[in-house]
Amino acid sequence: MADITYAKGLEGVIAGESSICKVDGENGRLYYYGYRITDLATRATFEEVTYLLLYGELPTTKQLTDFSRRMRKSRELKPPILQMIKDFPRDSHPMELLQSTVNFLSGYVDHKIEHSPTCNCRQTLHQVAQIPGVIAAFYRFKNGLDYIPPRDDLSHGANFLWQLKGEVPDNEDGEIMDKCLILHAEHSFNASTFTARVVASTLSTCYCSISAAIGSLFGSLHGGANEKVMAMVEEIDSVENVRPWLENALAEKKKVMGMGHRVYKAKDPRSVIMEDFLRTLSIKYGDTRKLDVLKEVEKVFREKMEEKGKPIYPNVDFFSGSVYSLLGIPSNLFTPIFAMARASGWLAHILEQRQDNRLFRPKALYVGDLDREWPEIEDRI
Amino acid sequence: MADITYAKGLEGVIAGESSICKVDGENGRLYYYGYRITDLATRATFEEVTYLLLYGELPTTKQLTDFSRRMRKSRELKPPILQMIKDFPRDSHPMELLQSTVNFLSGYVDHKIEHSPTCNCRQTLHQVAQIPGVIAAFYRFKNGLDYIPPRDDLSHGANFLWQLKGEVPDNEDGEIMDKCLILHAEHSFNASTFTARVVASTLSTCYCSISAAIGSLFGSLHGGANEKVMAMVEEIDSVENVRPWLENALAEKKKVMGMGHRVYKAKDPRSVIMEDFLRTLSIKYGDTRKLDVLKEVEKVFREKMEEKGKPIYPNVDFFSGSVYSLLGIPSNLFTPIFAMARASGWLAHILEQRQDNRLFRPKALYVGDLDREWPEIEDRI
Repeated sequence: MADITYAKGLEGVIAGESSICKVDGENGRLYYYGYRITDLATRATFEEVTYLLLYGELPTTKQLTDFSRRMRKSRELKPPILQMIKDFPRDSHPMELLQSTVNFLSGYVDHKIEHSPTCNCRQTLHQVAQIPGVIAAFYRFKNGLDYIPPRDDLSHGANFLWQLKGEVPDNEDGEIMDKCLILHAEHSFNASTFTARVVASTLSTCYCSISAAIGSLFGSLHGGANEKVMAMVEEIDSVENVRPWLENALAEKKKVMGMGHRVYKAKDPRSVIMEDFLRTLSIKYGDTRKLDVLKEVEKVFREKMEEKGKPIYPNVDFFSGSVYSLLGIPSNLFTPIFAMARASGWLAHILEQRQDNRLFRPKALYVGDLDREWPEIEDRI
Repeated sequence: MADITYAKGLEGVIAGESSICKVDGENGRLYYYGYRITDLATRATFEEVTYLLLYGELPTTKQLTDFSRRMRKSRELKPPILQMIKDFPRDSHPMELLQSTVNFLSGYVDHKIEHSPTCNCRQTLHQVAQIPGVIAAFYRFKNGLDYIPPRDDLSHGANFLWQLKGEVPDNEDGEIMDKCLILHAEHSFNASTFTARVVASTLSTCYCSISAAIGSLFGSLHGGANEKVMAMVEEIDSVENVRPWLENALAEKKKVMGMGHRVYKAKDPRSVIMEDFLRTLSIKYGDTRKLDVLKEVEKVFREKMEEKGKPIYPNVDFFSGSVYSLLGIPSNLFTPIFAMARASGWLAHILEQRQDNRLFRPKALYVGDLDREWPEIEDRI
């Protein structure tokens, strides 16, 4: 047994081919279907990026118009879904609600759902279109507020803010929200996307596969880092406190959230864009405290790491929580927003998996006993 | 690119160590924590096997009494869960309902759910205890019948039949149902169990992990084979029709369901036990048609395969659907029953995964483009 080696967590193991996303960690670049994330985040809308992820090509004007219309038409939630959100247990997490609800949505689609590689998952798009409404409804019911129906004249990001707060955001806020979703839409084979592909490989439905992926993203080792960065910012509170807080954290070997990334050895290109968004909103709302604290954390932490010869950079989670917070979003919705964005990427991977499918069924290395004798219950100790 | 090879579907790749289950396909043996399936199915109850799977050892009399009491106390469904089942879309599949509901159950547990390797998943046991009630309630509501509360004087299997039909089954029927669950409780790293482990590796909750596994089992390449065997039996209808039906099926290269298994080269030990159950019930209820058709399919199919030099045996799905059918269970509940049984195995794997956890994050082989130039929308064709 001792001489059989394997890669724990499948680290470094190739689990499949993909042409959806390239994370070039060495050079700090990220691509969706070959397009640079910087182009996507500056020039496209989330709906356009979703089209790209589902079809592999950017849409023409007509294609985008049709696609947006279809997606916006699918935003409205049916009464039983709203009831389900109302009935959701008081102390549970919205990610658990989301995982449950996505599956329920499949009952109201306009196309037939098939257990087949050719099932047309691109058709109804509830999995992507309705998640903002579910999150917003959860928040509003919890706070004793009414459900706000979606508007079809707003982008995916702006409509989310509308359904959440009942006020149409100004263009800038709506656009920043939409672009934050673009930045989180896809990131190759992480645990949740891999989960979606494993489930899809059984030819289960795309709803079931996305529901499963949401369960995976809920794990504290996966989604949720930006919520923790936000908590860190609140704990540190001011620029003056950064250095003593960090020195203490390093002495106690605490993990500093939002710094460093398994894959990126250079700067995460998404963090650069996210920092710009945070600067814009901080100035606009006259509240630079979060930005100031974060920049000081970045500076002092890098200084400390350079002493050890380890250059380290902020990742996308470092700034995103503060951006959401300035947009008026409570921190327990940060991971659900991640799911709202990643739904497009998950769907892309489900489609790709089905195109050339093989059921995922790895082997276990059995390290237990065999042929144990059966003890009668009275003889057990 | 061309000279990079990898195992599609991770076939043959070791994804982790486990001491829960050994499938010895060469010799047609199956073990849960080292105990033979034949011992388990003849000497234990499903609750006892669940205890074994969750603790790694068979319980003493006191441990089993306490465990059974706890599990039975957890059977009752809360009103919002019943409402959710009532509201479930008319044409959706009960597996979709189950995937949604399991997550909702987490809102009513007696212990704190933590995102931590030490979260006490063995405590409330709703994930295992309540699934029979959810399935039964689904069936009854669909058929305009009332919900039947669980009884705590019945075994897991017998209580399911009670909640489904509103009649206490006789001892033999209850015991056969319970033992069918034992036979399906665990089978190492198949796609659904692997899904549960991947989700658990993010430190997501056991409810979220089991919900995801249910989504995986729903796929037509995974669960659902016994439902298809049942449909085959109904299509063939009589012993006389078997030979022409099979000859036609083989000529058209149709898959004959329930015969053969990727792992078992010898007879699947579960199929032997399942055949006994079917014989017992067929005689008891004076209805041997299904058994006769199946035995004839087995005989003729083996004959045909031996001509090609490929010995082939029935697997567990070959007989199980007919057993359930004789117990009065409709065929759309067969895969949910599989989930009801496998919940114990999934929970065992979640616990084991957490004991020595590493996040699952394999690599993708990127085969797409890079640095595509951005086309303005009016220039796209």
